[in-house]
Amino acid sequence: MTDGSTLLTDFYQLTMLQGYFLEDMTASASFELFVRKLPPERNFLIAAGLEQVVQFLNDLRITETECDWLAETGRFRPEFVDFLAGLRFTGDVDALPEGTVFFPNEPIIRVTAPLPEAQLVETRLINLIQFQTMIASKAVRCLLAAPNKLLVDFGLRRAHGAEAGLLGARACYIAGFTGSSNVLAGQRFGIPMYGTMAHSYIMAHDDERTAFERFARSQPDDIVLLIDTYDTEAAAGKVVELAPALTRQGYSIKAVRLDSGDLVMLSKRVRSILDHGGLTATGIFASGDLDEQEIARLLAAGAPIDGFGVGTRMITSVDAPYFNCAYKLQEYAGRPRRKYSQGKQTWPGCKQVFRHYQADGSLHHDLLTLEGDRQDGEPLLQPVMRSGRRLAPAEPLQTVRERVASQIGLLPEALKAIDQQAEYRVEYGLALKELAERMAAAGPTAMRD
Amino acid sequence: MTDGSTLLTDFYQLTMLQGYFLEDMTASASFELFVRKLPPERNFLIAAGLEQVVQFLNDLRITETECDWLAETGRFRPEFVDFLAGLRFTGDVDALPEGTVFFPNEPIIRVTAPLPEAQLVETRLINLIQFQTMIASKAVRCLLAAPNKLLVDFGLRRAHGAEAGLLGARACYIAGFTGSSNVLAGQRFGIPMYGTMAHSYIMAHDDERTAFERFARSQPDDIVLLIDTYDTEAAAGKVVELAPALTRQGYSIKAVRLDSGDLVMLSKRVRSILDHGGLTATGIFASGDLDEQEIARLLAAGAPIDGFGVGTRMITSVDAPYFNCAYKLQEYAGRPRRKYSQGKQTWPGCKQVFRHYQADGSLHHDLLTLEGDRQDGEPLLQPVMRSGRRLAPAEPLQTVRERVASQIGLLPEALKAIDQQAEYRVEYGLALKELAERMAAAGPTAMRD
Repeated sequence: MTDGSTLLTDFYQLTMLQGYFLEDMTASASFELFVRKLPPERNFLIAAGLEQVVQFLNDLRITETECDWLAETGRFRPEFVDFLAGLRFTGDVDALPEGTVFFPNEPIIRVTAPLPEAQLVETRLINLIQFQTMIASKAVRCLLAAPNKLLVDFGLRRAHGAEAGLLGARACYIAGFTGSSNVLAGQRFGIPMYGTMAHSYIMAHDDERTAFERFARSQPDDIVLLIDTYDTEAAAGKVVELAPALTRQGYSIKAVRLDSGDLVMLSKRVRSILDHGGLTATGIFASGDLDEQEIARLLAAGAPIDGFGVGTRMITSVDAPYFNCAYKLQEYAGRPRRKYSQGKQTWPGCKQVFRHYQADGSLHHDLLTLEGDRQDGEPLLQPVMRSGRRLAPAEPLQTVRERVASQIGLLPEALKAIDQQAEYRVEYGLALKELAERMAAAGPTAMRD
Repeated sequence: MTDGSTLLTDFYQLTMLQGYFLEDMTASASFELFVRKLPPERNFLIAAGLEQVVQFLNDLRITETECDWLAETGRFRPEFVDFLAGLRFTGDVDALPEGTVFFPNEPIIRVTAPLPEAQLVETRLINLIQFQTMIASKAVRCLLAAPNKLLVDFGLRRAHGAEAGLLGARACYIAGFTGSSNVLAGQRFGIPMYGTMAHSYIMAHDDERTAFERFARSQPDDIVLLIDTYDTEAAAGKVVELAPALTRQGYSIKAVRLDSGDLVMLSKRVRSILDHGGLTATGIFASGDLDEQEIARLLAAGAPIDGFGVGTRMITSVDAPYFNCAYKLQEYAGRPRRKYSQGKQTWPGCKQVFRHYQADGSLHHDLLTLEGDRQDGEPLLQPVMRSGRRLAPAEPLQTVRERVASQIGLLPEALKAIDQQAEYRVEYGLALKELAERMAAAGPTAMRD
């Protein structure tokens, strides 16, 4: 519905661009996108959404039709609209690779480009990076709560629109989910698709047993039966009764799904019914208002659940549906810049993050400093685009998944707790601190230096 | 990015459809979409998103490329994929007109179509209706908090993806917002666009005064200056100093914008600085972490603010980022259906809502009953599509805005409080209750008659 239009931006980007155009302010500007602080429920974040940013920058252009419309609004000068028609992204991008663990104030992405280009893209960059980062950062907590379980994204219907459903599925998969219910995500990203039946399928049949039989016959290689439409335990009994006929035909019931009620109690009773009926290989899959906290609670209570469909609370990041993040001008025309708004001061200049590891390979601390201030440690921001061209093709999602898994494996244990806060050490380099102090001392109104 | 693809659905819709196809279950089915219960912070909801649903149903088709891909997955039978290729929406839709005030259990939309069609569209219908309804229902609370103020949607950057930004702007505008910062929403929906400058514009200039002057010159008909980049009160002083030169050229400073700090204190001081400088006609516009509660607090504290930019907390519906809503099978092949899952029982059958008014025109109560049970009162669900064709062109957004304004005007006062819960009376018709009891008595497993 939005078709990747470059008009998906804030009106003020265009009014500012008209100002820059008239003032001939086209020198190089560097902006960095970062998260100011973690929501209380997160100990670390996972970078995601870079690939969509690169595609957006690569395709950036305001079409002739769009330019005609902008001219018709009467809000812009004709020569500026002509300038917009020719605008392309010609800048550089450095970023954390998708799947990188990161912390507040660390740049996720830096854009260095002629000021109008770097400015115009602000809105969509935040829009793309915030959402996927938010979802990946919550999804990975489900992995931490249920490390060896099947985890499937069920979020599409309650996602905030189409793109949230599609990119949310991608973010969950990056974080390590097994798959998604989202068919379009399967087509676009090759994400494994899961799902079998809704209550309506059962209800459309005259009785539950018939519904089970017919479904099994129509989907013999992937029989998962939803058993909570009427009476869950009675339905589990019907599953047991159905099994021998299927077995004779060479098919097996892969799992049953619970979607309501007391999942601890029901999963135990259903497990027992299945086991007594000889269906020890049939799994139990659960869904309905789940997130990492609820999954942890179910497993701690001994619920014999093999997989979880995680939907609404995940795809809306319900406990933190936005991040306090910003895309801020760090440097223009070779001079560092700093915002002083109350409570919103920023670290000036272009920055790099150097990560330090312990002897066993686990994360020790990060050092945030100016880009030119070469330090020991692994530099996290990597070159992604130069002069408007991407330096490498899209990373396979499998590579990103492996990066997440490996980095999570290297996290200090305390940070992996999903119900306790723990802080990772991020140091600020001397060069960065000195620049910030120098600028503070010079004062905001004396920036001519 | 999603391009309106019909594959934006849950995988289980396709597996169920394959079942229906093989069983030849193509009789008429009726599904209703409704909200089970209000979030604690809402006394009523505003229906929104119907126009996008109608467009989706109108355009519904799985393309040849998509069918080829589905076949390649090996998850579906070839004859079923052929069936999908020919699938169109041929059904009927009845719905609350957009902008209608409604309450839990009242159908927002009813789809009556051959079972596969009515089933397939579930995911996207919930996705479209939930989001816009959620945003319109929160946006209208901002109107209630600040009835005579300029209210502008600033949500795009923190929206969950592109479509949330675009349709969120639409939902805010339906609810009565003055406009949006979203340029694409301006182009697609004719929503008035607002916005002037970001901190980066100020920071890119060597000093704030120059930034103000240059911006005024480049945008002389719409001068709104952001004054909190460095020192808010000092910046207000600069605005006063800048004014005479602009006045001589025939221009005036429309407003200043505050985006951080103690907005009550700063707005009062800035108002005083502007007034003493003779800029009594220059307004104060505020933004930054606002929602209806914060707006109400600011105004109650006497903050002299003329307009609000409402972004993150609005576009994410932060206090209720999803609704407990469902799209449930009510009737199949002429027989009513009912779900019995624990805590999720539904009212069976196709329903209508009859609204009753007091003598002064204000809302008195609603009666929810079976569609065929003709009752007094205004029937709220209206025919929208018949045999797959829409009955009327898209309503102008202005019409929907007027509907919201008029219905809000008719709400009982208690329901309009944004910080107190009040309940509206929704009665259940005898015919509906009898059907529900009859079905409960017959029991879920005895649904053959």
